[in-house]
Amino acid sequence: MKKLTIIGGGPAGYAAALYANNFDLEVTLVESDILGGTCLNRGCIPAKYWLHLAELNHEINNASDYGIQVETSEIDWNKSALKRQDIISGLVNGIGMLLKSKKVNVINGWGKIENEQSVLVKKEDGSEISIESDYILLATGSKPRELPSLQFDNEFIISSDSALNWEQPPKNVCIVGAGAIGCEFASALIDLGSNVTVVELEKEILPGLDKRTSGELRKQLTKRGVSFKMGTSIDSVADKEVLLSDGEKENFDTILVAIGRSPLTENIGLEDISVTTKNGYIDVNLETMQVIGTKNVFAAGDIISNSPQLAHVAFAEAMSAVTYIATGNPSPINYSAIPYVVYTNPELAEVGLNSDKAKLEEIDINQAQHSFAGIGRAMIQNQNQGLVKVYAQKDGPLVGASICGPSAGEMIHELMYMVGWEALPDEAAEFIHAHPTLSEAVGESLLSLNGKGLH
Amino acid sequence: MKKLTIIGGGPAGYAAALYANNFDLEVTLVESDILGGTCLNRGCIPAKYWLHLAELNHEINNASDYGIQVETSEIDWNKSALKRQDIISGLVNGIGMLLKSKKVNVINGWGKIENEQSVLVKKEDGSEISIESDYILLATGSKPRELPSLQFDNEFIISSDSALNWEQPPKNVCIVGAGAIGCEFASALIDLGSNVTVVELEKEILPGLDKRTSGELRKQLTKRGVSFKMGTSIDSVADKEVLLSDGEKENFDTILVAIGRSPLTENIGLEDISVTTKNGYIDVNLETMQVIGTKNVFAAGDIISNSPQLAHVAFAEAMSAVTYIATGNPSPINYSAIPYVVYTNPELAEVGLNSDKAKLEEIDINQAQHSFAGIGRAMIQNQNQGLVKVYAQKDGPLVGASICGPSAGEMIHELMYMVGWEALPDEAAEFIHAHPTLSEAVGESLLSLNGKGLH
Repeated sequence: MKKLTIIGGGPAGYAAALYANNFDLEVTLVESDILGGTCLNRGCIPAKYWLHLAELNHEINNASDYGIQVETSEIDWNKSALKRQDIISGLVNGIGMLLKSKKVNVINGWGKIENEQSVLVKKEDGSEISIESDYILLATGSKPRELPSLQFDNEFIISSDSALNWEQPPKNVCIVGAGAIGCEFASALIDLGSNVTVVELEKEILPGLDKRTSGELRKQLTKRGVSFKMGTSIDSVADKEVLLSDGEKENFDTILVAIGRSPLTENIGLEDISVTTKNGYIDVNLETMQVIGTKNVFAAGDIISNSPQLAHVAFAEAMSAVTYIATGNPSPINYSAIPYVVYTNPELAEVGLNSDKAKLEEIDINQAQHSFAGIGRAMIQNQNQGLVKVYAQKDGPLVGASICGPSAGEMIHELMYMVGWEALPDEAAEFIHAHPTLSEAVGESLLSLNGKGLH
Repeated sequence: MKKLTIIGGGPAGYAAALYANNFDLEVTLVESDILGGTCLNRGCIPAKYWLHLAELNHEINNASDYGIQVETSEIDWNKSALKRQDIISGLVNGIGMLLKSKKVNVINGWGKIENEQSVLVKKEDGSEISIESDYILLATGSKPRELPSLQFDNEFIISSDSALNWEQPPKNVCIVGAGAIGCEFASALIDLGSNVTVVELEKEILPGLDKRTSGELRKQLTKRGVSFKMGTSIDSVADKEVLLSDGEKENFDTILVAIGRSPLTENIGLEDISVTTKNGYIDVNLETMQVIGTKNVFAAGDIISNSPQLAHVAFAEAMSAVTYIATGNPSPINYSAIPYVVYTNPELAEVGLNSDKAKLEEIDINQAQHSFAGIGRAMIQNQNQGLVKVYAQKDGPLVGASICGPSAGEMIHELMYMVGWEALPDEAAEFIHAHPTLSEAVGESLLSLNGKGLH
């Protein structure tokens, strides 16, 4: 039985360890912190908890639209934080149990490559062990990126990691960065009663995503009270006063820096196997996930180049690496059909190309869109803003889609299949969407793309 | 320009009228009541309003799980009913405007076939006009089925049509029938504070649907307080006392009969073109939607044989009929990949075959399932009961799926594509679902079906 040692117990690491159970592999997983990584402990899961809490609060505050009269509603922040911790603990324990049931040897300690077939683990008590194995998978993840001018002090200037641990949201918050993380915080905090200012250097929120759907999201967040300062940065911070590049001065309780994440590839022994990194990222062969320049070392997740930093991509890369390790057959990911979801209220979800990306790749496209305005289910839910956009190559298959609307993150998956399988518009338009669902907007956009709209 | 006359302004009728605008057709639509038919006025839309109201009420009543303390919450039933009526009016007016913008000639009156190329319309004022046309499309819809022993009196024994018009739900209700309509009412009413008893002759709720997922729904409704009396019927009713076939006597405010719908095909002139019906249903050629025995008469929606009575099927049949009328080319529906959704809380959605249907068709299947128990998003939403089931032909493609869980009605659509396109399990399992979404349960079930589960 071949041996695999994994460094890192986040989405890439634990998924690799679990998936290896489908093959003839003996697995050791080395993690220096709690299992589950950023995603479970300081990322996706607590973020979605905050967003769910905010959505619930928003619904309660607007329930009188439906005649439900709520006298007073107040948040017990301590209780809410306990529930959040409960969910996280449940998931972390679940992973621990799964790893145990699949006979993964989990070691708590700092793992470092000694050579291509050995990992040195330093435990908390100072002791060290060497683990010999046939293959090594690096899955050490990432941490919030810092701005030199805005270094984290864990009190006033904080990262998303710390923010997710808040018991209670701040009264006045300045979010630096209008990417996915920044927008998710803005959406959650505005619905929990904070004053929210978002400072972003670019002209649009969610740079790179579809301008029409991200513009719609910006419109809706603005309507709920988020103040977006586009093309703006922070010039200086003195005490709690912030000087913006547009000349304005404002006071905040907290500056939340959400400008992306940096790979954690220091002190894991890359130099000992002569692997160099670019801005901290590791180059891998995306067909096999092998680290370039090595034979037995693999990498997956947030640390690799040319791959989006997403938990579900980490899962897939881990599975791809394990499949190659176990079978010798490459099982590459189709990077052109990966869903990207921003879990704001409403959600924004995208797959494949949008008009800007198509232009960059010099692909001529046809596009169609359908608004949620007349979709019965969306009207019933008071969520009939937003739209579905679909893109096809001229005289060719579907190449992308973007949705801003309720449950966009679920609906994007049917478009993922169409993009992945290169469905032609007339093939895609043949299917019948259930009435009354939100997905009808997807069906209608596909009918329009095919040249024959219905509603 | 060829002329098409449509009798009936519900989903089949208005969809046909709107879709005809994509072709060279002059359309007259005859409707004796309000546009939108059962679906908008007495069916899907008001039902989903009640269900949304109930879900919102349930969420508010359980918000303290998240630390949101709601002091008192009370429903202003009049306000709630007005909101419901607003949504319906919005949709009805929307259809009116769309029909106008697409230059459809809408006539208010009772339409009746005179011969294959003429429709006689009797208006409310008693006047009559004859409309000559090249083609006729029958789209007259259906009405709630009555039991001979439980005839509707619109006070104590009522149909779903009347129930949806309630301003306020009854205190003690007996629902006869545990099909989709009965279960949806049970789900809504239990979360709005009613005492709910469901009487069903069969042993399982939602007969015909997957036993495992429908069993899960029954379990959850039972847990919330719905009393299901299976294998039971009503023996007699005296005053407000109901004698059940199991010997029990109970008092109810209301008996809601939800045992399905009957086609409305009387007094529309079928006898004048020598078309006979079976139990009221019209036989059509499902390739073209032509009424058997006629050349120029078509039918779509709830009135035709061998087709499910669903609004989205009515849309599709109407589009299929119009395409054939306009182009002469059949554009048949793929009836094997139509999503079926029960909009209970949680939803139950199904497409294609389940184990029982596969057995009936003597198809050997493999199956896999994944529970929502460990799905992060479902845990965050407190909705991690339920599961996804997927079915594939042995050594063959996917043939069906059934989901009981939150947003099942949206998630079923990606499975619809796989079933419709006959995806092989290894093709389906290749795709990466966004984390953390509910759809991950779909992805996991497909991985398991392909023999290599992850979590």
